[in-house]
Amino acid sequence: MSAPNVIRIGLCGLGTVGQGVWKHIDRARHELESRLGVRLELAVAAVRDTSKQRTVRIPAAKLTDDPIAVASDPSIDIVCELIGGTDVARDVTLTALALGKIVVSANKALICKHGAEIFEMARRHGGHFLFEASVAGGIPIIKALREGLVANRFPLIYGILNGTCNYILTQMEDLDVPYATVLGDAKRLGYAEADESLDVHGWDTAHKAAVLTYLAHGVWVPTDRMVVEGIDRLTPADFQHAATFGYGIKLLAIISRDFAKNELSVRVHPTLLPESHVVAKVSGVFNAVSIKGDVVGTTLYIGRGAGQDATSSAVISDIVDAVSILKNDRRAFITARKEPAAAVSSTPCRLAPPERIHGRYYIRLTVKDRPGVLARVATVMADQRVSIASVIQNRAERPDAASLVLTTHDSNERAIQATLTRLARLASVLEPPLLLRIGDFPE
Amino acid sequence: MSAPNVIRIGLCGLGTVGQGVWKHIDRARHELESRLGVRLELAVAAVRDTSKQRTVRIPAAKLTDDPIAVASDPSIDIVCELIGGTDVARDVTLTALALGKIVVSANKALICKHGAEIFEMARRHGGHFLFEASVAGGIPIIKALREGLVANRFPLIYGILNGTCNYILTQMEDLDVPYATVLGDAKRLGYAEADESLDVHGWDTAHKAAVLTYLAHGVWVPTDRMVVEGIDRLTPADFQHAATFGYGIKLLAIISRDFAKNELSVRVHPTLLPESHVVAKVSGVFNAVSIKGDVVGTTLYIGRGAGQDATSSAVISDIVDAVSILKNDRRAFITARKEPAAAVSSTPCRLAPPERIHGRYYIRLTVKDRPGVLARVATVMADQRVSIASVIQNRAERPDAASLVLTTHDSNERAIQATLTRLARLASVLEPPLLLRIGDFPE
Repeated sequence: MSAPNVIRIGLCGLGTVGQGVWKHIDRARHELESRLGVRLELAVAAVRDTSKQRTVRIPAAKLTDDPIAVASDPSIDIVCELIGGTDVARDVTLTALALGKIVVSANKALICKHGAEIFEMARRHGGHFLFEASVAGGIPIIKALREGLVANRFPLIYGILNGTCNYILTQMEDLDVPYATVLGDAKRLGYAEADESLDVHGWDTAHKAAVLTYLAHGVWVPTDRMVVEGIDRLTPADFQHAATFGYGIKLLAIISRDFAKNELSVRVHPTLLPESHVVAKVSGVFNAVSIKGDVVGTTLYIGRGAGQDATSSAVISDIVDAVSILKNDRRAFITARKEPAAAVSSTPCRLAPPERIHGRYYIRLTVKDRPGVLARVATVMADQRVSIASVIQNRAERPDAASLVLTTHDSNERAIQATLTRLARLASVLEPPLLLRIGDFPE
Repeated sequence: MSAPNVIRIGLCGLGTVGQGVWKHIDRARHELESRLGVRLELAVAAVRDTSKQRTVRIPAAKLTDDPIAVASDPSIDIVCELIGGTDVARDVTLTALALGKIVVSANKALICKHGAEIFEMARRHGGHFLFEASVAGGIPIIKALREGLVANRFPLIYGILNGTCNYILTQMEDLDVPYATVLGDAKRLGYAEADESLDVHGWDTAHKAAVLTYLAHGVWVPTDRMVVEGIDRLTPADFQHAATFGYGIKLLAIISRDFAKNELSVRVHPTLLPESHVVAKVSGVFNAVSIKGDVVGTTLYIGRGAGQDATSSAVISDIVDAVSILKNDRRAFITARKEPAAAVSSTPCRLAPPERIHGRYYIRLTVKDRPGVLARVATVMADQRVSIASVIQNRAERPDAASLVLTTHDSNERAIQATLTRLARLASVLEPPLLLRIGDFPE
């Protein structure tokens, strides 16, 4: 397999991303081939329906409905798994890796659920699993973490990792329109899936956070061990209150590690960011990732987080890396560059307990509009030693109710969750409290 | 030389960056070695004065005052050229490359002046020249351009590439203080060199622009073929005028290519950027690089552009890449990944003539405060078909003079330079006109 002159690529899945990869490789073929010194052959694409009309025209002889046949075809060097989901995608990936092939994937859900198994399979059989497109679309963030910032440990990584949510939040903020209205528009425009739950409840962001956590810290954190909260309960009033305090609201993934205590926390939640913060300016479908390295300081990466072209750009960069691997000694390459930094660290870290995840909080309560309510709320908070920093009382959207917005001084997740549980039980509190975190990130 | 177990590193130069590299490799040694599967030996450092006291303690036996001996020592695998300048640095680099070694460099002036010779030497003898630290400090921008965005052509790259200038501009803008005062402070704080001219006149930025141009377009553009203008003639009043129009002022490098006409332009000049633009928010010693790829769209990279730690982070990432090269087949690696994309392009581009470099302009004139001056200025501009968009007239700092600030509609470099020449000749114009460009970049 050393220095082959023709590299045969098989695509499993020919949806938006698959067609983009095919199209852009065809367009850039001359430059890529001159540079790589090999011929790139788009050998076969596995699709569900071979007779379907597609924007990208592909000869019928190159189409199949059997992705496993592509994964196991001995003449295929690089398998692009672009099916999505975690069932067939897992079979395709493991089949190809067991044969020592290189798999290129954009599938964060797959990596999050089966990453340990996938990387172990690659290691055992000399295969490679490349996944630049799985996080932050066209921004080469995986390469930055693994290679460009290799001299660093990472006390803090945070960012906007879901373009759909950021589009919705930006529209709500700019146009002062309710969540449901913006979501409807986003679906019509194709910025949100028909089933939006994976995006708006934060799970897609959590999958990407798991991938970044593995790269930066070498551990797989299951999403059910993270704090994961979505954006579906935010109202235009929350943006107005946040603005009063000088903040915008972004759905952030936050991965923080305390190297002294050797503790890690991974969180996904809507976060108040100071309006002057660069990340607060990142609007629409754009993603942003801020990486604090202990040597380099903070670096920030911004770009389109999804879409055919941005994702294709990342998949093709992995294909080019795959060709480099094929032209070199595979085993030397994997040990040298493709292992996450911390996977080989001698001190695996543990998850931080809730009382050590601290920060300032924003709580919105819908309460009965009558005397004494604020006193009861303040008593609950005092009992939990959560110190109030500011209070805004407004009319709520429903009649006979008031909206009570409180911000706190520094507290922690254990105290704040106990507070919310007790507040929810008060007879004067009419709806489950809404909790937002305040992001105090230095730039 | 295949899969060696000990990699011997020689440092030429042990100033701020050299000591940082030594310190951080020592600190991160365990993780780097586990990951790379080799032992990293800091074998020798060449310094001017071996008896000088340094923050980083290095055994006397590892110090030499002969950098060429380090470059030619057959036991040294990786030579880090951290001397600066273009004389000894060139000798060290060419000596090591002629022996097929890997040279890691942060020296943009060297690359700009001798890049063609250096890369040719590397090619001829199977050596490698890595230079991630030469542009934008700790931001892995070279890797992003070469590898992460390999699927793209680059119609537009622009950014803040000099932390000293950005610090000065930010201070002038925030504190409303004259250039000379801020420069003095910057020197005292160590943010500016004793001889500031390379930075403030734009040449350091131009060197970095030349490196990015080579990577993105495969051609070496000499700095005397670029428009290069510095920041030393800006006044606090310029920031006030810019703010009136809704702009900030940044020193930008701008590399634009028209693929249809196959023309390239490379410029360095103070630029008015809309205050809402993310790059306008990048303050102090930070750098920012915006890269528009024809596939990925626009991606933006922000981080510290200089300083011991940020630069060390980039040098160490190159050392890690160098180890990967040493563990693999050198020739396969270089052809596969280390060549600039466009160097192998079949259609070398040419520099755009001045009449095709267009945009909007800001002109500040110091004029005699008497009737008829504006008419004469407007006539000159009309003669050159430069259309005026707005005029602000103020008292100038000197007595009996007025300050006339004009912005134009879209014009071009040929027309605007002809305009400036004629304006400078008017008896009523008391000082050479100050020209700023207005940056109309979509985000």
